[in-house]
Amino acid sequence: MPPAPGVPGGNLRVVLVAPRNPLNIGAAARAMSNFGFLELGLVNAYDVAFREARSAVGAGAVVRNAVEYPDIGAAVADCSLVVGTTSIGNRQLQHPLRRLEYGGRLVRRALAGEKVALLFGSEKFGLSNEDMSWCHWLIRIPTREEHGSMNLGQAVAVCLYELARRPVAATPEPRKPARSAEVDRITRYLLEALRESGYPRTQSTAARVRRMVRRLNIHEQEAEAWMGMLRQIVWKLRSGDNET
Amino acid sequence: MPPAPGVPGGNLRVVLVAPRNPLNIGAAARAMSNFGFLELGLVNAYDVAFREARSAVGAGAVVRNAVEYPDIGAAVADCSLVVGTTSIGNRQLQHPLRRLEYGGRLVRRALAGEKVALLFGSEKFGLSNEDMSWCHWLIRIPTREEHGSMNLGQAVAVCLYELARRPVAATPEPRKPARSAEVDRITRYLLEALRESGYPRTQSTAARVRRMVRRLNIHEQEAEAWMGMLRQIVWKLRSGDNET
Repeated sequence: MPPAPGVPGGNLRVVLVAPRNPLNIGAAARAMSNFGFLELGLVNAYDVAFREARSAVGAGAVVRNAVEYPDIGAAVADCSLVVGTTSIGNRQLQHPLRRLEYGGRLVRRALAGEKVALLFGSEKFGLSNEDMSWCHWLIRIPTREEHGSMNLGQAVAVCLYELARRPVAATPEPRKPARSAEVDRITRYLLEALRESGYPRTQSTAARVRRMVRRLNIHEQEAEAWMGMLRQIVWKLRSGDNET
Repeated sequence: MPPAPGVPGGNLRVVLVAPRNPLNIGAAARAMSNFGFLELGLVNAYDVAFREARSAVGAGAVVRNAVEYPDIGAAVADCSLVVGTTSIGNRQLQHPLRRLEYGGRLVRRALAGEKVALLFGSEKFGLSNEDMSWCHWLIRIPTREEHGSMNLGQAVAVCLYELARRPVAATPEPRKPARSAEVDRITRYLLEALRESGYPRTQSTAARVRRMVRRLNIHEQEAEAWMGMLRQIVWKLRSGDNET
């Protein structure tokens, strides 16, 4: 199942600016592969880090096909929308800053028709003001102020998840509740079992049991199994009666 | 700024079942701290991994305060909702499986009034069927079928982001577009600069330039700066005229 129907993953280029840790390059690439965005660009990557990431077991196609660019200008030259990511510290931002929920929607919309670059800064310093000057606007992942800065691989994963996210309405309920008649049958078996067990019974017992069974919210697939269990219990109770 | 107003992070317990890699325990804890969910439980953690994660630099309060439980039953005993995560492989699932977009909404709703446990399986095998039997239902992160399995730390980050996510409607546009009068003034300065430069002019030039400036979508905060630049250019063009 493609994660984001209507969102051509091929239009997104994830650009890591000055990454220093091969594990992070690998983690970013893994998240990209998970969510179906396969084009990775690197600018000013620490050479050893890139080589190690490339040769890591299971690095996969994303890292192997990653392209190194001499600078950000070259990395985003063919993109009509360039978006940077930031955890904003105390830096005064010169750019519009959008929460990921909203910025992601704008990126998704753009991906339908344009090439988009999504920039992530280095693990330690994020994107510099100079880096950001290439961006049309910035995205902020909604982290706590007390601990805003995310791990690079996790930040990439969260941003790409937002792009691959589908509206909730598109998700059908995975299981149907049992039909009322089935719930009734279960209730009757249970009442029968209670009766056979000598459970104290008042006028309101049946109604109370019925309400309790309804609240169980039994699902279609399990109604039969519940019935089977109760039937068995009732049978046993009755046969016990016969024996004594 | 708290990431998820109305969602008491204190009601969520993230439970890592049989984690093997200290880096992953640390990464999970970091994402928890980023998104404001601070209660970490560990079941059957590889001892060395837990100790290393605990002593890692910057591990922070989440790892230090993590609680080890003897089994899943103990880890979820006080929770009224237990949700497992899975990338479903070929295992036949006995549980309702919900995409994160929808499952996250249900968890968020539950967190308002109940204690919820969110379970993550080991890096290699995920949650076993036995582990899952403790769950009410399962969440699947919408990854590609070709590469479904996520890194543990990234999976935790993505799930917690979904829980901290706020509806887009709550995000105000960070910047206002410039008012029409300002855009007009900019247009007039530009036209004046073109005229002073001897730019070839037809009857339609003014209208075309006006449309082009509008499409720039200049923002309020920058209108003044644009005006200043053009004013300067016009002034220079005119004073050059005077000198020659």
